[in-house]
Amino acid sequence: MALSELIRTIQPLDERAMEQAQNRQNRLTKPPGSLGRLEALSIQVAGITGQMPPQVSQKVVFVMAGDHGVTEEGVSAYPSEVTAQMVLNFLRGGAAINVLARHVGAKVVVVDMGVKGSLDAQPNLISAKIAPGTQNIVKGAAMSREQALLAIQRGAALAEAEIRAGAQMLATGDMGIGNTTPSAAIAAALSGKPPALCVGRGTGVDEKGLERKIAAVERALTVNQPNPDDGLDVLAKVGGFEIGGLVGVILAGAAYRKPVVVDGFISTAAAMIAVRLAPLARHYLIASHRSKEQGHTLMLDWLGLEPVFDLEMRLGEGTGAALAMSVVEAACKILAEMATFDEAGVSEKI
Amino acid sequence: MALSELIRTIQPLDERAMEQAQNRQNRLTKPPGSLGRLEALSIQVAGITGQMPPQVSQKVVFVMAGDHGVTEEGVSAYPSEVTAQMVLNFLRGGAAINVLARHVGAKVVVVDMGVKGSLDAQPNLISAKIAPGTQNIVKGAAMSREQALLAIQRGAALAEAEIRAGAQMLATGDMGIGNTTPSAAIAAALSGKPPALCVGRGTGVDEKGLERKIAAVERALTVNQPNPDDGLDVLAKVGGFEIGGLVGVILAGAAYRKPVVVDGFISTAAAMIAVRLAPLARHYLIASHRSKEQGHTLMLDWLGLEPVFDLEMRLGEGTGAALAMSVVEAACKILAEMATFDEAGVSEKI
Repeated sequence: MALSELIRTIQPLDERAMEQAQNRQNRLTKPPGSLGRLEALSIQVAGITGQMPPQVSQKVVFVMAGDHGVTEEGVSAYPSEVTAQMVLNFLRGGAAINVLARHVGAKVVVVDMGVKGSLDAQPNLISAKIAPGTQNIVKGAAMSREQALLAIQRGAALAEAEIRAGAQMLATGDMGIGNTTPSAAIAAALSGKPPALCVGRGTGVDEKGLERKIAAVERALTVNQPNPDDGLDVLAKVGGFEIGGLVGVILAGAAYRKPVVVDGFISTAAAMIAVRLAPLARHYLIASHRSKEQGHTLMLDWLGLEPVFDLEMRLGEGTGAALAMSVVEAACKILAEMATFDEAGVSEKI
Repeated sequence: MALSELIRTIQPLDERAMEQAQNRQNRLTKPPGSLGRLEALSIQVAGITGQMPPQVSQKVVFVMAGDHGVTEEGVSAYPSEVTAQMVLNFLRGGAAINVLARHVGAKVVVVDMGVKGSLDAQPNLISAKIAPGTQNIVKGAAMSREQALLAIQRGAALAEAEIRAGAQMLATGDMGIGNTTPSAAIAAALSGKPPALCVGRGTGVDEKGLERKIAAVERALTVNQPNPDDGLDVLAKVGGFEIGGLVGVILAGAAYRKPVVVDGFISTAAAMIAVRLAPLARHYLIASHRSKEQGHTLMLDWLGLEPVFDLEMRLGEGTGAALAMSVVEAACKILAEMATFDEAGVSEKI
């Protein structure tokens, strides 16, 4: 699907399914509202899917990888080659996202959106490489507008393929040394907040590294002048290939009426671009967790999303999203499997 | 085991296992500390079990039921007969705890600790009934000291039996119309805080009901004068049979070095009594969630516990604990299944 068609396809939530879900929640054998966020999540997913009860057991996490020219500014605690090394770790099942995805019964789809150098062809590695890493955003645009569009379209096509194969709930994940810097730049560009509020320590830079990151984001915005009304322009000028791929996953999820569980800082930057391109996409998003990365709360506030939990995580890869998918699935099972007061012969409120 | 022996058996956490777990966390392929609470939980469970990596996949939720004489003061939004009706719902698998326990792969053990009337013998219902409901705490002690001791011992014996059968992680759950009132009284008695700060709306009483609950707790404390230095006295005077059973589960879990995941308001009241009886038991506890019930935060603060999540739940039954058990299990799998930097050939911090 072309991007404009994808965006046009996204519709509001199904109000009727949400009303049915709310009514059923009120008849289940528990005080109304006593399951809190689980009830709200189940109602949102009913609205997303148009199903009552909603079916979300087929779960897929997209872990999209890309490298970043801005690493030459000394913005990361790890060297660029770690991106490719971690992709291999994902493929062998040894990374945190593999462990957590297995735990919750989710499939992991690993995608090379723009890793530096050439990853040898690997079984289970999807190559959707746009280029071997972005340009340095301090010196100019990360990528061309055409490359940004292509990244979104490739991400959307991959999500579409998984949905056609049965995926019922999607989650976003990322790998890319240096990618908290473009993510902070996206947050600053779209929210209008000062870079110093959007930049955090990423994988763990020291005070000097943090100063370099803030300076890099300030410079990237000055040099590139991204247009905050144009999500594609922001992605092209200060984004990343894996971020573009995740924008595509989010838009396809929304277009196909699947809940999209958003991981932490980088995924939320992608969500901001997706929502700037297609405001209705916001209703299809579930924020998984509040990252420890400074700036994440500001991004969630801009999106109007309240995360499912706060486990002080800041790893990325989709790790927070994987755990949250299990909570969303539990919430939907409540609708499907709990007995009502009538069915169970339980007395109602006095 | 006699209560005094149970208490003497509880030992400090295994520092060596905790150090091994911390060291392994630091070598796994992620920035150190980036899994936040998951890392801390895995280290705590290593210390609890003395195992590295800790094994917690065999999970059991104890749902203990009891009735409360204080319901005659109009402190609950539901009639007393709902306790027995919900026990039958648990046995048929239609309640929220059944759905969530199935979701996370936990066994549910349903125990009649003191339900009013006689529940017909049911397959899978464990009868450990002390009496058909407590006495009204506004007028005198809920139970005798002997009954309080018996409730703890029966709860401990049930936990011990499950542990001998293979249980590796325990969770606490409750059912008892009216039981937020004794729980608030326990919180007030042990913490010394005013009843008005400890009492919440329970299953959903209105403003008048809330005033009646506060008055009932104030009166119960005045009439009974529970000794805050004597956990057994507090349980006997203002507690409940299901609360006593849960105290036993917690003490047995700690004695046998199993993590005990504590549910919401009622379970946390039981945890306070357990910790007053055996201060070392605190280290074996994992607070699952922050209940919406007013007073819960005050109880968690008294215990020095930070909950795993806040999903605005207030149902009881062990529902929050069931979800949290899955997070604890995930945390332990990280230790067992993730690759180290060396194993994966990933470069370390610059």
